[in-house]
Amino acid sequence: MKKPIQDLYSEDFAHCYGCGRLNEHGYHLKTYLENDYTISKFTPKDYHIAIEGFVYGGLLASLIDCHGTGSATIFCAKANKIEIKEGNSPRFVTGTLNVKYLKPTPLGKELTLKGELIVETKNKVQTKISVIVDGVVTVVGEVTAILLPDNFGKSL
Amino acid sequence: MKKPIQDLYSEDFAHCYGCGRLNEHGYHLKTYLENDYTISKFTPKDYHIAIEGFVYGGLLASLIDCHGTGSATIFCAKANKIEIKEGNSPRFVTGTLNVKYLKPTPLGKELTLKGELIVETKNKVQTKISVIVDGVVTVVGEVTAILLPDNFGKSL
Repeated sequence: MKKPIQDLYSEDFAHCYGCGRLNEHGYHLKTYLENDYTISKFTPKDYHIAIEGFVYGGLLASLIDCHGTGSATIFCAKANKIEIKEGNSPRFVTGTLNVKYLKPTPLGKELTLKGELIVETKNKVQTKISVIVDGVVTVVGEVTAILLPDNFGKSL
Repeated sequence: MKKPIQDLYSEDFAHCYGCGRLNEHGYHLKTYLENDYTISKFTPKDYHIAIEGFVYGGLLASLIDCHGTGSATIFCAKANKIEIKEGNSPRFVTGTLNVKYLKPTPLGKELTLKGELIVETKNKVQTKISVIVDGVVTVVGEVTAILLPDNFGKSL
């Protein structure tokens, strides 16, 4: 993948605070397929702190969330042999997000998020996401992402 | 409780991006005990968006995380009859965070986070957290919070 999946979302789906290219306040997470894995890189700001020296866990959950939905699009397209071009990308939202903090994540370093496919079905993709710092996994997550239905939000 | 629990944390623990009173960039979540529940209120900014009209799920996970650790301190103090004063507050960190998004959360409204104690043991507090908008629960979470050990971060 030359472009990250978030740069191929249609404009309607490009405002997400975590990964939307059109959200000027957001994190702008960028997710790529590398071999069988998905990879994002992110360096937290100094103020993304939990306790001195360590990254805020809520940020890590946010990154896992967005890496999970981006990975879902990538794995869905791969499984269904969809060639994603700008604007035709399937878009997933998070159904469940489970995060386990194995050890404190040091602040001031680049984080790597690595996504692995657990299972892909008709409208769901489940992934395992690891947060890695200097080769050490500090946090693991599981994201069940749901293909955005056409009537999203209309039943409220 | 007249003061929110986050205003009673010692300065060392008051820089959290989600709930630290000393983090000028953060969310400043404030958590109170009301009867047997813990309550925080938060109104997302316009840019905390997932898809037009709805709150970013990563933010909701972050709020559940901080509401969970704040609630852990409150429930721990209540169970152990500790009268929290400024600086003597037990401080918890998140061990696991499980979030289930039941329906999209509308943007532009005040959110109420409501915490209920599931179980409190020597060094762990498990809570159920609900995100409520206009009386409707849109997201539920479970947080297992762990009492901050004295050697936190030293084993890295």
